Amino acid sequence: MDSFLRAAYEEAQKGENEGGIPIGSVLVIDGQIVGRGHNQRVQKGSVILHAEMSALENAGRLSPSTYQNSVLYTTLSPCKMCSGAILLYKIPRVVIGENQNFQGNEGYLIQNNVRVDVLNDQDCIGMMEAFIQNNPQLWFEDIGEDSKDKDC
Amino acid sequence: MDSFLRAAYEEAQKGENEGGIPIGSVLVIDGQIVGRGHNQRVQKGSVILHAEMSALENAGRLSPSTYQNSVLYTTLSPCKMCSGAILLYKIPRVVIGENQNFQGNEGYLIQNNVRVDVLNDQDCIGMMEAFIQNNPQLWFEDIGEDSKDKDC
Repeated sequence: MDSFLRAAYEEAQKGENEGGIPIGSVLVIDGQIVGRGHNQRVQKGSVILHAEMSALENAGRLSPSTYQNSVLYTTLSPCKMCSGAILLYKIPRVVIGENQNFQGNEGYLIQNNVRVDVLNDQDCIGMMEAFIQNNPQLWFEDIGEDSKDKDC
Repeated sequence: MDSFLRAAYEEAQKGENEGGIPIGSVLVIDGQIVGRGHNQRVQKGSVILHAEMSALENAGRLSPSTYQNSVLYTTLSPCKMCSGAILLYKIPRVVIGENQNFQGNEGYLIQNNVRVDVLNDQDCIGMMEAFIQNNPQLWFEDIGEDSKDKDC
């Protein structure tokens, strides 16, 4: 596995070990990780700290031009909120562990000239698949969907 | 001024009194404010706690269907990140204090069937105009723009 995706995956594992939703992310600038994060819905009762948002938050305040040299790694395809944050800060490239369990707003990112690389890594797919199967209500809450609308 | 916009404006004033960026927001469900917030870039060093995000965060974890009966009030047109959060949670209506100093992603919200009401309230316009004039660098940091690119 790509070493930065591995770091995002380790964040996801950390989240799962805390009883949370196993999605992780890291923000990379010039080959260095400057922010790491994982989903905090359960741990902090947060509705905005998705993994990508958490990585951005933990990177702290950066100058606008700094983001323009960054790459955001995430284990799962970014939702509309996280995609919006990527566009706000003009992050030019996103590397996505997988989009088999959830496809976020990739098309909108591409339309806005973000380079999107989807790796469909088997470890990322397997972790998320098992989580959704075992915790459908929590998962659907995290993506703003009523689980009753879904076949699960 | 509409009473919910007034509450958002008071949040913005609170932020300004704390030395922060004066943008405020409230989330309303069934005629009741369930979350209040203001921009926290300065106060918490946060790059994700825009006013709207802060109001959503402070409302806590709600069931997906609850958001679908909500209205988000904000003193300033919501950026791409905040618009993405509105779409993630399927908030059907946004009331915007003003879009003269900044026009966010309103078109994308409308395309996605969000009702967008722009009030262009003079108090909201005046507060933001003065802030941007006095704090251009902080303002441009908050919207991910290099201030050197702008005439200010």
